[in-house]
Amino acid sequence: MESTIKDIAVRAKAASRKMAVASTEQKNLILHAISDKLLLYKDKIQNENQKDIEYATSKGLSAAMIDRLKISDGTIQSMIKGLKEVAELPDPVGQITRQWRRPNGLEVSKMRIPLGVIAMIYESRPNVTVDAAALCLKAGNCAILRGGSEAFNSNIILAEIIQESLVEIGLRYRDSNLTASKDDIQILKDAVQVIPIQDREAVTHLLKQEEFIDLVIPRGGESLIRFVVQHSTIPVLKHYKGVCHAYIDKVADIELAVKVCFNSKVHRPGVCNAMETLLIHKEIAPKFLPIMAQRFAEAGVEIRGCQITLDLLKNISQNLKVAEAQEVDWHAEYLDLILAVKIVNSMTEAIEHIAAYGSDHTDVIITTDMDRAEKFIKTVSSSMVAVNASTRFNDGGELGLGAEIGISTSKLHAFGPMGLEELTSTKFVVRGTGQVRI
Amino acid sequence: MESTIKDIAVRAKAASRKMAVASTEQKNLILHAISDKLLLYKDKIQNENQKDIEYATSKGLSAAMIDRLKISDGTIQSMIKGLKEVAELPDPVGQITRQWRRPNGLEVSKMRIPLGVIAMIYESRPNVTVDAAALCLKAGNCAILRGGSEAFNSNIILAEIIQESLVEIGLRYRDSNLTASKDDIQILKDAVQVIPIQDREAVTHLLKQEEFIDLVIPRGGESLIRFVVQHSTIPVLKHYKGVCHAYIDKVADIELAVKVCFNSKVHRPGVCNAMETLLIHKEIAPKFLPIMAQRFAEAGVEIRGCQITLDLLKNISQNLKVAEAQEVDWHAEYLDLILAVKIVNSMTEAIEHIAAYGSDHTDVIITTDMDRAEKFIKTVSSSMVAVNASTRFNDGGELGLGAEIGISTSKLHAFGPMGLEELTSTKFVVRGTGQVRI
Repeated sequence: MESTIKDIAVRAKAASRKMAVASTEQKNLILHAISDKLLLYKDKIQNENQKDIEYATSKGLSAAMIDRLKISDGTIQSMIKGLKEVAELPDPVGQITRQWRRPNGLEVSKMRIPLGVIAMIYESRPNVTVDAAALCLKAGNCAILRGGSEAFNSNIILAEIIQESLVEIGLRYRDSNLTASKDDIQILKDAVQVIPIQDREAVTHLLKQEEFIDLVIPRGGESLIRFVVQHSTIPVLKHYKGVCHAYIDKVADIELAVKVCFNSKVHRPGVCNAMETLLIHKEIAPKFLPIMAQRFAEAGVEIRGCQITLDLLKNISQNLKVAEAQEVDWHAEYLDLILAVKIVNSMTEAIEHIAAYGSDHTDVIITTDMDRAEKFIKTVSSSMVAVNASTRFNDGGELGLGAEIGISTSKLHAFGPMGLEELTSTKFVVRGTGQVRI
Repeated sequence: MESTIKDIAVRAKAASRKMAVASTEQKNLILHAISDKLLLYKDKIQNENQKDIEYATSKGLSAAMIDRLKISDGTIQSMIKGLKEVAELPDPVGQITRQWRRPNGLEVSKMRIPLGVIAMIYESRPNVTVDAAALCLKAGNCAILRGGSEAFNSNIILAEIIQESLVEIGLRYRDSNLTASKDDIQILKDAVQVIPIQDREAVTHLLKQEEFIDLVIPRGGESLIRFVVQHSTIPVLKHYKGVCHAYIDKVADIELAVKVCFNSKVHRPGVCNAMETLLIHKEIAPKFLPIMAQRFAEAGVEIRGCQITLDLLKNISQNLKVAEAQEVDWHAEYLDLILAVKIVNSMTEAIEHIAAYGSDHTDVIITTDMDRAEKFIKTVSSSMVAVNASTRFNDGGELGLGAEIGISTSKLHAFGPMGLEELTSTKFVVRGTGQVRI
């Protein structure tokens, strides 16, 4: 098995040299070809997907899991929409991010280049296969994809469609891809490969191919991500969890605060950028909290509060579910209609709380005092720090990066949503006229 | 031992929150204080260093190793010069690298922030302790330093001097460091720590502290670096080796080519950006190679050539040492006055050779045809690709980054020389007026 995995990595590396020099036009045509073939082969895709669903059903997977697995007509439409959006995005490769001239006349610039080969390890949804491949290819990279074993047949057929597109468009661009022969174009097929082995050991071997793979992106639960970090000798971009805070400062517009907090918690509670803990300055709490709690009660949000919170909420409607917060609540990523609430004595206490319990993901201050907002911005080290806006904006699309391949909560290489640019590196380009070191 | 190492990491993380908000002025004063104390405590430093030298002598270390270990008056002056240079560099922290406005009115920007805690693992030279600490501190980071065991006493005294400076300056900036009490300032001491355990197992434990350490930078031989990559769950910025090429195109200014190649090979053969392989287009080889070989013969450079190279050099002076190149020569990082030479049929062959045998470090083309130069730039994926300039320019100082902490040959986060900016990350800052997701 080890040799099969190594072979996949070696072939991806070879293909990555072709992809790195592919023109924007070629890459966009590949994305459009995939899009066309998703429609053309719709029945075939859904037949293969049906095999996965039947297997999952026989294994007794939950209805929710099976729903995530299913490639409906809607799923196909959404993959097509995604491909078209990525094709519309500007190509980062070749962009000059900075340039300057040295006293000796050397012209120095930094040019964006693809990372090379990216391995994605993810769980059930088979649409990730197409979404991730599209982003990797547009940034000039190759992708090695390892989806959940329950989506095995679906992923294989989707990869075949992508590979057919790569070769079909590659044939039209033979010269610019540095390829001498028609056979050579077959290498492009290896630009997107799915690991054809279900055994988890395959992942362990994959994670040791540092000579050929430049980056691993795991997407899934914390145990998957910890497994990857433990076993990988390749750099990993990871996202453990989102324990996002909103802090209501002593001077804040209460109506605005209620609106933003409601959206942060209730808009989509099951995602990583939903608010999990609400911190409230003691001076504004008596005015703000009862109104806020009333809104939360109507939406069925359960509150786990500190003692002062409990005191302030004594006389609120019976609909409100309130319990005393335990230490575990301050660490919790509920991903549900549950919210931890704490009253703090100062902004410094709020910042200390975020440093102690947060996950460097998303933290928000609601205030009318812009000096205090700037202090919060400066001292909170999360991937998105916002003033008077919902936590839900920490998202590649919402921030204007276009599609995202994930959100990084570690600071190396990328911090926050990763779009196309985050799938590139930069090299130094130096143009001289015979300069030497003295 | 594991708990000692974890404790160091935990304390570094706590200190990193203070360093992250330290002003540029505070950080520069720290660097100047270290600089002053290096002079003040010169005798004490050299006494401690003498212990290391005596121990190394008793263990029979080579004269070259002992020379690298020695803290002479010159070493102290060069550390002081380094500290002053880093103090002069612009502070990257807080810089806005990009900003834009979303259709919903959100003002989005990316702000440079420190990485947090950086662990450096390096070999003999104790001056690295001061140089690395200076760069880490200026970028608002904390450093955990693990030098070679042979420099143990030297590193401990240098760290003590740095810690004394951190606390001394910290006391003047109590308010801006979010610290309530005088005792709290002692935390700043932990901004630079040296691992006080010589056992290699200490490194293994250090490399597992991913919760508290953001980056590991190993500096030393390939075996040290591979050890770190194998054992680390923390991201690693690494530099395996520099197999640097110059390619002489079919159209090139021969005088310029000779000058640049001579500098690339001979200026300082023992460093990673020295040329190791010379590739020559067959059309220019008969004119260029004999002149070049004559210069190399005068400098004592030994040539390992392909068959055509040997044929072309048959009638050159007897001073020239020439042998037939073996496969191993194309992979070699000689770090010596030895050069592999190959005649190629085309630029494409040169590019393929670099892809197959290079190390993504530094590759140069010498040509008068700027279209061909652009093709070379586009297709060669090294951290520095240069046209008509010496390989020796791949260096933080030469490229204008100021001091460098190392050269990365992997593409994640930083590719090429790493200066202050490469010791930072960016976070998204969002300023709103009550926006929510719809």
